[in-house]
Amino acid sequence: MAAGLQPSIASAAATSTASSAIVEQWGLFEVELHGPSTGNPYKDVTLSGRFTLNHRTVEVAGFYDGDGIYRIRFMPDAPGHWTYETASSTPKIANKSGAFTCTPPVTANNHGPVTTTREFHFQYADGTPYFPFGTTCYAYLFTAEENAKNSLAGMKQAHFNKTRICVLPKPLGRDREKQILPFPRTGTTNDLTRFNPAYFQLLERRLLDLQKAGIEADLILFHPYDAWGYKSMGAEADDFYLRYAIARLSAFRNVWWSIANEYDLVKTKTMHDWDRFFRITVAEDPYGHLRSIHNSGPIYDNTKSWVTHASLQRYDFEKSAERRAAWRKPIIYDEIQYEGDVERRWGNLSAEEMTRRFWLAIVNGVYATHGEVFISETGESSWSDAGRLRGESGPRIAFLRALVEKITTVGLNEYEGSYYLSAGTPNQLYLYYFDYHRPARYNFPLPTTVNFSATIIDPYNMTSKPLPGVFSGKSLIQLPNRPYQAIVFQKVSDNHNKNTVAAKPEVND
Amino acid sequence: MAAGLQPSIASAAATSTASSAIVEQWGLFEVELHGPSTGNPYKDVTLSGRFTLNHRTVEVAGFYDGDGIYRIRFMPDAPGHWTYETASSTPKIANKSGAFTCTPPVTANNHGPVTTTREFHFQYADGTPYFPFGTTCYAYLFTAEENAKNSLAGMKQAHFNKTRICVLPKPLGRDREKQILPFPRTGTTNDLTRFNPAYFQLLERRLLDLQKAGIEADLILFHPYDAWGYKSMGAEADDFYLRYAIARLSAFRNVWWSIANEYDLVKTKTMHDWDRFFRITVAEDPYGHLRSIHNSGPIYDNTKSWVTHASLQRYDFEKSAERRAAWRKPIIYDEIQYEGDVERRWGNLSAEEMTRRFWLAIVNGVYATHGEVFISETGESSWSDAGRLRGESGPRIAFLRALVEKITTVGLNEYEGSYYLSAGTPNQLYLYYFDYHRPARYNFPLPTTVNFSATIIDPYNMTSKPLPGVFSGKSLIQLPNRPYQAIVFQKVSDNHNKNTVAAKPEVND
Repeated sequence: MAAGLQPSIASAAATSTASSAIVEQWGLFEVELHGPSTGNPYKDVTLSGRFTLNHRTVEVAGFYDGDGIYRIRFMPDAPGHWTYETASSTPKIANKSGAFTCTPPVTANNHGPVTTTREFHFQYADGTPYFPFGTTCYAYLFTAEENAKNSLAGMKQAHFNKTRICVLPKPLGRDREKQILPFPRTGTTNDLTRFNPAYFQLLERRLLDLQKAGIEADLILFHPYDAWGYKSMGAEADDFYLRYAIARLSAFRNVWWSIANEYDLVKTKTMHDWDRFFRITVAEDPYGHLRSIHNSGPIYDNTKSWVTHASLQRYDFEKSAERRAAWRKPIIYDEIQYEGDVERRWGNLSAEEMTRRFWLAIVNGVYATHGEVFISETGESSWSDAGRLRGESGPRIAFLRALVEKITTVGLNEYEGSYYLSAGTPNQLYLYYFDYHRPARYNFPLPTTVNFSATIIDPYNMTSKPLPGVFSGKSLIQLPNRPYQAIVFQKVSDNHNKNTVAAKPEVND
Repeated sequence: MAAGLQPSIASAAATSTASSAIVEQWGLFEVELHGPSTGNPYKDVTLSGRFTLNHRTVEVAGFYDGDGIYRIRFMPDAPGHWTYETASSTPKIANKSGAFTCTPPVTANNHGPVTTTREFHFQYADGTPYFPFGTTCYAYLFTAEENAKNSLAGMKQAHFNKTRICVLPKPLGRDREKQILPFPRTGTTNDLTRFNPAYFQLLERRLLDLQKAGIEADLILFHPYDAWGYKSMGAEADDFYLRYAIARLSAFRNVWWSIANEYDLVKTKTMHDWDRFFRITVAEDPYGHLRSIHNSGPIYDNTKSWVTHASLQRYDFEKSAERRAAWRKPIIYDEIQYEGDVERRWGNLSAEEMTRRFWLAIVNGVYATHGEVFISETGESSWSDAGRLRGESGPRIAFLRALVEKITTVGLNEYEGSYYLSAGTPNQLYLYYFDYHRPARYNFPLPTTVNFSATIIDPYNMTSKPLPGVFSGKSLIQLPNRPYQAIVFQKVSDNHNKNTVAAKPEVND
């Protein structure tokens, strides 16, 4: 077993042709091989493994992990008896074979990787619904232990099930000099032909901590926040790093690929580069983990086939319908500005405004991602790098997540013609959010064929008040005399009462 | 003196060639003539007056006021000895002449009519600054006395200095059958070749009440809210009514012309009609009162020469800069939705949201107009028709008006490149509004050459907190830890201290 890796990962020292290892479905099976440590094994040695279950074979790249150790990682997607065989330019680690038994999942929250479904939504590979309610902790993977611990605690506390994190380091203020780096560095010179395995080993331990906590890792492969020259390494080094990262990380089931953060701010790269990174990722990741790219200004062309979902820096949720129509993919508004109190416009939302934006996302049929940044006079790392969660929107976002998970298994689709913002599933579910409107009452145009329960929700105060009785057809309901309130109608039964008043279509006025 | 008209109006029974009447500048001088009442004097008799001061002659149309009485109204725009002479198709009222003395204004709040100035702003004819902080009372001119009284009291209480009001009646719910109408009506048949003078006399009394209270009357000439066929009278009757209205009303100094409300909802008229109404108004109104036209959906082409300012139904203030650039005229967002609690989306803003929108308008270099509509179970008329003011934004709007009037005489221009929304006059005045942002502090990029006072403002709680000291150049200031706050910097003196840190331009991030 590789040092620091968790019990859900089975590994085999593949020195023989047989192995009795057991790994759960979507767990991580690792073949450890011992080979040459001279020269530059990162560049000089090729390594791959072919994993076979019955008629199906999956080929995956291996990687050099330092100290003469080579690894091939594999995430089996089906139970059964898998066999494998290695191939390498170095005879010592070539033609090694073995086998393992893949069992159905045994870890409680192991539902496999997240995939897209029903055009605009997500689910786990085993069909379990997954609704992203994520946050942003860019430096979580490489920050000091204390910060990472605080981040993880905060993510658990606020029930976040996804986080956006950087693979390459981001300079961390006064801690910059102490940071662990992914490439060997002498003075100000990077050796971009080799890696620092310790960097990736740390990253992987933290990735597994997320996995154990049921948190998806939206791994940002490139970004513009650089102090070491990593944003302008040149195409050869970029691709070399990308392939290495994919070889190491793609067998972790909670991985998503975010090709870049604020791609348009990385001025050293062109659209050609971004497209190439996508193509490499498609080719090298045998599991087809989710793929997106995050903008600052102009939005990437999300119609391109390799994009699985849109990852936007925007908060103009009213454009969701036209974006869905153009892209036909799920949309996550992955930066909607941050809760906080800093000087920058993007970092000083109130918890109320952050809560409002999450609700706007949901009733617009899309998803949103949290971020937080408060002024720290102590030099303490801010949440959106990695650190303590200090804001007050977390519990409200958890409240919304719990609500969504309670009322739907298929995700909420926006009712695009709705007079007030609403989303749901026709004849089943209607979730209204009134935003700044505060009608004293509203005549809800419910279907006549269904009886609905109704629950008034205060998103910020996190209260739910079920109304007595059932509702069908035109239903005049008194509402709280305050803005930012919601109501949800859930199907109780079919309605066979012919006297129900049919709702007229709403006039857009 | 005409019945019901106020003391500031001088009238002369022009039966002789001499008169010793006295009227103040921008007051209303009225010539009353007695002529035929048989046939249809509205159609059959032409009447006009030529008013002369020294070398200048102004020709104005007269009108028939019923009972054999004809009137010519004139608003002199300069002090001096004016003479006049009438012309008519009816000899009995033709060639009457007279004179009056126009004095400088004596009424306290008489600054003349409002005009546009400095591209994007307004002022009175005497140069006194005028910043529109208006409201909406569509039925004020023709509603029951009690409602009109309540409206006027509410406008005074909230210090509104403009109101949008309809000239043609709007059906008023259960009072509809009792409404006074502008045209004779038999059963369901209108006689569109005559007017009901009593309708216009009532309207004029109320117009004068507004004038006495210092409130500009944005007179809506056409609108789609109709129960009698007035929105589809045909071009001939439209023009006949328009000319009559202008002849009667243009001598009131507080008149503005709003060609229509929600012009695009009047489906019986075309763009040709709207343009013609503008042309007639330009031709018939000798004083050049302000002219605009109010949309529901598509905005009228405000570049047309006859438009003096834009009157928008919108609340997308972020588009103000591009609209100013396109139109080069003042912009009033004349319907920004209403404070209230009704079911319709446009009528249930909180007072906080209404206050916020007024502030957004001001820091975007434009103006806004209030409206209010609360559910009344008693059938009581709602404010935006005419009635009691029940909302809570009124005092906040008055607070903002008082602030604007205190800090500027020339109006606030948006700083289009400002990192946070701000408006003012370069090197003199900087008013920031933080909207939903709540930075704990901000490094304001003030000019280094000027010393400024700073005052933190809470727009909703209506507090102003002057900060000690003066500020120049880069100025880091602690701000309240809440959204929807403002700060104003006012020039105190020139700064000759060479050590002031120059502010770097803000980067748009």
